Amino acid sequence: MAIELTILGCGSATPTLNRNPTSQHLRIQSTDILVDCGEGTQIQCLKNKVKINKIRAVFISHLHGDHYLGLPGLISSMHLLGRKNLLTVYGPPPLERIINMQLEVSQTTLRYPLEFIATDANKPHLLAVFPEFSVHSFPLKHRIPCTGFIFRENPRLRKLSDAAVHDYNIPVIHYRRIKEGEDYVDDNGLIIPNNLLTSDPLPPVSYAFCSDTAPDPSVTKAVENVDHLYHEATFLEELSDRAAETFHSTAMQAAKTAVDANVKHLLLGHYSSRYGDSFPLQQEAETIFPGAKAVEDGMKFILE
Amino acid sequence: MAIELTILGCGSATPTLNRNPTSQHLRIQSTDILVDCGEGTQIQCLKNKVKINKIRAVFISHLHGDHYLGLPGLISSMHLLGRKNLLTVYGPPPLERIINMQLEVSQTTLRYPLEFIATDANKPHLLAVFPEFSVHSFPLKHRIPCTGFIFRENPRLRKLSDAAVHDYNIPVIHYRRIKEGEDYVDDNGLIIPNNLLTSDPLPPVSYAFCSDTAPDPSVTKAVENVDHLYHEATFLEELSDRAAETFHSTAMQAAKTAVDANVKHLLLGHYSSRYGDSFPLQQEAETIFPGAKAVEDGMKFILE
Repeated sequence: MAIELTILGCGSATPTLNRNPTSQHLRIQSTDILVDCGEGTQIQCLKNKVKINKIRAVFISHLHGDHYLGLPGLISSMHLLGRKNLLTVYGPPPLERIINMQLEVSQTTLRYPLEFIATDANKPHLLAVFPEFSVHSFPLKHRIPCTGFIFRENPRLRKLSDAAVHDYNIPVIHYRRIKEGEDYVDDNGLIIPNNLLTSDPLPPVSYAFCSDTAPDPSVTKAVENVDHLYHEATFLEELSDRAAETFHSTAMQAAKTAVDANVKHLLLGHYSSRYGDSFPLQQEAETIFPGAKAVEDGMKFILE
Repeated sequence: MAIELTILGCGSATPTLNRNPTSQHLRIQSTDILVDCGEGTQIQCLKNKVKINKIRAVFISHLHGDHYLGLPGLISSMHLLGRKNLLTVYGPPPLERIINMQLEVSQTTLRYPLEFIATDANKPHLLAVFPEFSVHSFPLKHRIPCTGFIFRENPRLRKLSDAAVHDYNIPVIHYRRIKEGEDYVDDNGLIIPNNLLTSDPLPPVSYAFCSDTAPDPSVTKAVENVDHLYHEATFLEELSDRAAETFHSTAMQAAKTAVDANVKHLLLGHYSSRYGDSFPLQQEAETIFPGAKAVEDGMKFILE
């Protein structure tokens, strides 16, 4: 297992025909979530075969329209499609009021439980703990309160060797505890040490999401040492003045954050609508972060 | 001139890959307006080459998400694209609060004037008067307050004959008054009667829009004698029970309303997502209203 990422939208505020506003689908082990939910996200889910009623939680970074205006329609469609299971929405405090008002005016009583948990854009915090992963939120530096998210898989179970199972004739009932690190004691009282039975699992994967932000040491610090960083790259360096004015980053600044934070992999997105082709943004980032990748809508990644 | 209609969306609540939720673009003489604005309407405008900053007004029938959730994003994009001119939004009273809240949380101060005028879903009323047309609103019969709209071109000016202009050597300054029906008095005091100078103009066109409604005598009465009626046809007659439960119409009921109201032309839309093909809905309506047309996204009509 790993984290599977599907780019549902990597455009920015002004709409284009080729890029939806920001939204990403993550499957972390067996749990589906969305990160940001710009207008049209439910259609992007349909196009990319993401089943909306499998989505367990939605994380919203901030309340600029291109990051959340698809949420009311998504919540309504989940209802119309017969959802029964809990949906948890994490986002800035006013989001709860907005959603509730829209449910109220449409006189909709949801058939499923909808839970809202507010983010705090003032300090890093542990936002959510799921069985398979945890989520930290941290402040981004934008024009309005805005948070990034770090998704970290929990440490995985050790890998049980098929050969050992066979050689020591281990009953299924013991598998779980051996994978958790215990030794095996057979029917004769013989202790088989765990290191003969298992090998190290793949290390857990971490993924940081920085939707809209100016470069800032606090952001670099927050994403330090993550495996995969998605970072906005709204402009090329030649428009760094415009980036500063609007509290966005250039591709070069995104790459610099990635270098300084010692991340392993860098994905770029949230391009200004002036860039029909994202390749120049990738090239700019690659000058200091080789392997940087400019994403496009519909791309899928296995994060390992 | 006539009314030009572009179907931006003719789907209903559950999204599909082929149909946007409800939205229509009308160009009435030289004025552009939108009627309903479901999620994704701004992208549909791009696809259909509708310039959003030429739109003078938006009419929202009711506050089910598939009829208005594209409006906040549209308002924001108009702002980002540098709009300066007035936008008037007509819709149910809570819409103003929703829009204002969304502007507030995104800390957006619009660079253009946005005016909101509330509809009254309890009785028919004259909602708006533009230089080239008027708009009446009337109650539809739906689960929440909902109004239809009738757009009526103002009576057109009489057609001034080129031959008469030449024969009587009429100066340009007199054209307007002659077109308005006045006789012409030449420099010698000779009166030329208007009927020698002009012919009857094309009659003004009327277009009624019924977004979501159960059939009802009050609706039939409201749209009596209009030239063109757009009427929802969410279901086939075989699902008339489902239509009644949800306060929608079948294609047959839409056609019956059109017959009883003595309208000249009938367009159908707002199909349940179960109907990949709208032709059976058209066929059903045609059994009692020959010429009924089931619309699809992207279709354009000249209403005469």
